[in-house]
Amino acid sequence: MKKMNNSLKEISETILNSRQVLIASHINPDGDNLGSSLALYLTLKKLSKNANVLWVDSIPSDYLFLPEIENIKRKEDLNIEDNYTLITLDSANLDRLGINKELAVNASKLINIDHHISNTKYGDLYYVDSESSSTGEIIFELIKELNVDLDSEISNCLYTAISSDTGSFMYSNTTSKTHKIVSKLYENGLNTDEININLYQSNSYKKTILQSKVLMELELYHENKLAVGIVDGDILKSTDTSMEDTEGIVEKIRDIKGIEVAVLIKENYENFKISTRSKRYVNVSKLCEKFNGGGHIRAAGCTLDKENTLEQIKTNFIKEIGKDI
Amino acid sequence: MKKMNNSLKEISETILNSRQVLIASHINPDGDNLGSSLALYLTLKKLSKNANVLWVDSIPSDYLFLPEIENIKRKEDLNIEDNYTLITLDSANLDRLGINKELAVNASKLINIDHHISNTKYGDLYYVDSESSSTGEIIFELIKELNVDLDSEISNCLYTAISSDTGSFMYSNTTSKTHKIVSKLYENGLNTDEININLYQSNSYKKTILQSKVLMELELYHENKLAVGIVDGDILKSTDTSMEDTEGIVEKIRDIKGIEVAVLIKENYENFKISTRSKRYVNVSKLCEKFNGGGHIRAAGCTLDKENTLEQIKTNFIKEIGKDI
Repeated sequence: MKKMNNSLKEISETILNSRQVLIASHINPDGDNLGSSLALYLTLKKLSKNANVLWVDSIPSDYLFLPEIENIKRKEDLNIEDNYTLITLDSANLDRLGINKELAVNASKLINIDHHISNTKYGDLYYVDSESSSTGEIIFELIKELNVDLDSEISNCLYTAISSDTGSFMYSNTTSKTHKIVSKLYENGLNTDEININLYQSNSYKKTILQSKVLMELELYHENKLAVGIVDGDILKSTDTSMEDTEGIVEKIRDIKGIEVAVLIKENYENFKISTRSKRYVNVSKLCEKFNGGGHIRAAGCTLDKENTLEQIKTNFIKEIGKDI
Repeated sequence: MKKMNNSLKEISETILNSRQVLIASHINPDGDNLGSSLALYLTLKKLSKNANVLWVDSIPSDYLFLPEIENIKRKEDLNIEDNYTLITLDSANLDRLGINKELAVNASKLINIDHHISNTKYGDLYYVDSESSSTGEIIFELIKELNVDLDSEISNCLYTAISSDTGSFMYSNTTSKTHKIVSKLYENGLNTDEININLYQSNSYKKTILQSKVLMELELYHENKLAVGIVDGDILKSTDTSMEDTEGIVEKIRDIKGIEVAVLIKENYENFKISTRSKRYVNVSKLCEKFNGGGHIRAAGCTLDKENTLEQIKTNFIKEIGKDI
């Protein structure tokens, strides 16, 4: 395995020399993944390349506004030649490619572009930069290397990628370079109005009610520095929502003034899924490791089986968090 | 009255030639106002100028993290000389200065720096740029003109100003220049962690409960494109909150998917205050003008007296909005 990134120049040349280019998005596609994939697709179209983005998993409705999203195609619907280059974006390992993994393994050239520190550096060529806030930032540089002018559609895709991976520039992965790139996107036709509505003003009414209900029933511990929210079948039923609609709730709990640790316990039929967030100093990754989970220091989770009761889980978490808070 | 902005060079020279400089913040000080004032104060301190920021109104607790905020002083506590230069920041007219208006009128030199399109262009010198997202952007340029190097504290103040007036770069006043400036702040020691916690993760628990309750009791009209929330004495009492805690709720209503117009009706003893927001196409400024109010096309308000009942107000608004939605 190579130790060093290939240059974006080498990657660019490989792409330009390819007869067919397939861009693989990852399972549970997100804004960075979809925005980066479509930005690269639009760029290759401007170069009249035979290029496509591969469908891998259902696309969240929040991203359906993206240009060319309807042209993300299932592999069965494509005329795939014997020799093709496959580019994975934002995918730390090949399993992230889901149903397209085999296509990656069989590619004449496999190119891996990502910003995850956990990337396994697979591929014939790779460019992994964990200093980048998002894969979108890297694609911005690659487009420069491909010598294609940005336009409004490409800029909108790259902004979607960068904004969604930085929480609209609030997360600590945001850098001077992030803002410099976005500044350039504005100079090339970026229009953020519809993007920001779709990314940040699109919680469904039912989801809003669910969030509100969970927030109203929070339990507070440790001088109100720990808040525990609970989602069970009853609350989902009463709000006509599903577990997917719990996305974003644990962050809303953390965002309350004075809260250092937010815990959301989601009770499923077969297990409890627990999400944790911290604001300033508690290492929730370490906390979740005690329960065979893990993650990042400010965002982590774990899964516990039903041998535990909800009360036991709460008691254990409250006790463990008490050591750090 | 002059027709044209003075240059920042002229303003900078006037400041450098002043023996004493007073910086006036405005009533209901906000992030742009406080961040800009303190950035300029820190800059003038680096130049060893006799400078102060004048206290005008209580400072929201969210901004107490700003450097030097404790050095914002009441005029009574300052040794004000016969000749002084007073700089107003972010204040469209002299009434915004509250208790410090007279000091402005009596200043040897009055300098007016602002980004509001409604600025009356008062002052011996003024610089009003409505293309700037925030007064913070203008102060960034002024500091360059004053030839002072940015440092971490100044950068943090300017970021607070810019981020709060652009809603973390989401509002449509954000430009290429906005991002270019923030990129430079990062290069000069900006650390956003504590700022973003204070600006965006500091709703009190009680306020969170109030918000949740209002959201859970929304009334929906016009195929769920209009949502009406109501805050009265009962809901405030039951959540132990005050009218100030309603800040931000109408935006949360607008942020629900499918909602085009959000209306929040706040019942006081003496009147009803109504806040409105729209997402894409309804002109709520025009709407509120029909009720003797006004504002911007996507954010407006009005006040109605108690000759109207809550039901009448709702009926009238629903009817008027029905024409545009």
